Amino acid sequence: MKNIKVSKINKIELPEGDLYKFIDNKNKNFNEFGEVYFSSIKPKSVKAWKLHKKMTLNIVVPVGKVRFVLFDDIKKKMFEVKIGQNDYKLLTIKPNTWYGFQGISKEISLVANLANIRHDEKEMSRQSDDFFPFDWSIK
Amino acid sequence: MKNIKVSKINKIELPEGDLYKFIDNKNKNFNEFGEVYFSSIKPKSVKAWKLHKKMTLNIVVPVGKVRFVLFDDIKKKMFEVKIGQNDYKLLTIKPNTWYGFQGISKEISLVANLANIRHDEKEMSRQSDDFFPFDWSIK
Repeated sequence: MKNIKVSKINKIELPEGDLYKFIDNKNKNFNEFGEVYFSSIKPKSVKAWKLHKKMTLNIVVPVGKVRFVLFDDIKKKMFEVKIGQNDYKLLTIKPNTWYGFQGISKEISLVANLANIRHDEKEMSRQSDDFFPFDWSIK
Repeated sequence: MKNIKVSKINKIELPEGDLYKFIDNKNKNFNEFGEVYFSSIKPKSVKAWKLHKKMTLNIVVPVGKVRFVLFDDIKKKMFEVKIGQNDYKLLTIKPNTWYGFQGISKEISLVANLANIRHDEKEMSRQSDDFFPFDWSIK
């Protein structure tokens, strides 16, 4: 799915607590700095569906584990990716991609998003979590 | 202490998990985007002492609670500030300030730092945690 990309990033283990790299101004997935914010997500809870018309999202999960579900509007196909502190990766979501996410660890998870523009409700579309046929139950 | 600043920032409570604003490109504490990374810190563990000659740090703690200890090298005075998910604030540390931090919640805490330059060991000074006379024991 060409609107999303999963990239390797560094996690450095330290006795006092690990260090998680997120993104720097030389990373090829970085273009501009608009805003960075966190979205905590409770176990089994779902935040879906959202689409950004202009925002590119660069996402990491440094606490817990989260599944992201992306919808390819042209091929009408779902794409799922799971990332978290023990499977630490950078997820890039380009504009015009429907996405939702769910906490899948026992504890609360933390999603960090670095966006190329500031939050602007006008460039967003939202739908309820049952708008696309996806089974959010956890096996 | 003029080298550090504690600012109010927004936390929005949501049923699926709270939203924590960090910083955007219009925030008056933001100047340039160099890098953003996370440092997890175990309960009672200490990461100290560090000084940046060029980096300005913009710090939040969206998980757990952390105490930061800053050292004013001119007045030879210590300054302590505690921030965390239930006391959510933005801590700005300007260059040439010695600082250290400690996890003070029961669980692991997460420190997020947005820096105006990329990590560069050459612009840093480090000392062991007993270099300045500070009692890190937790009462």
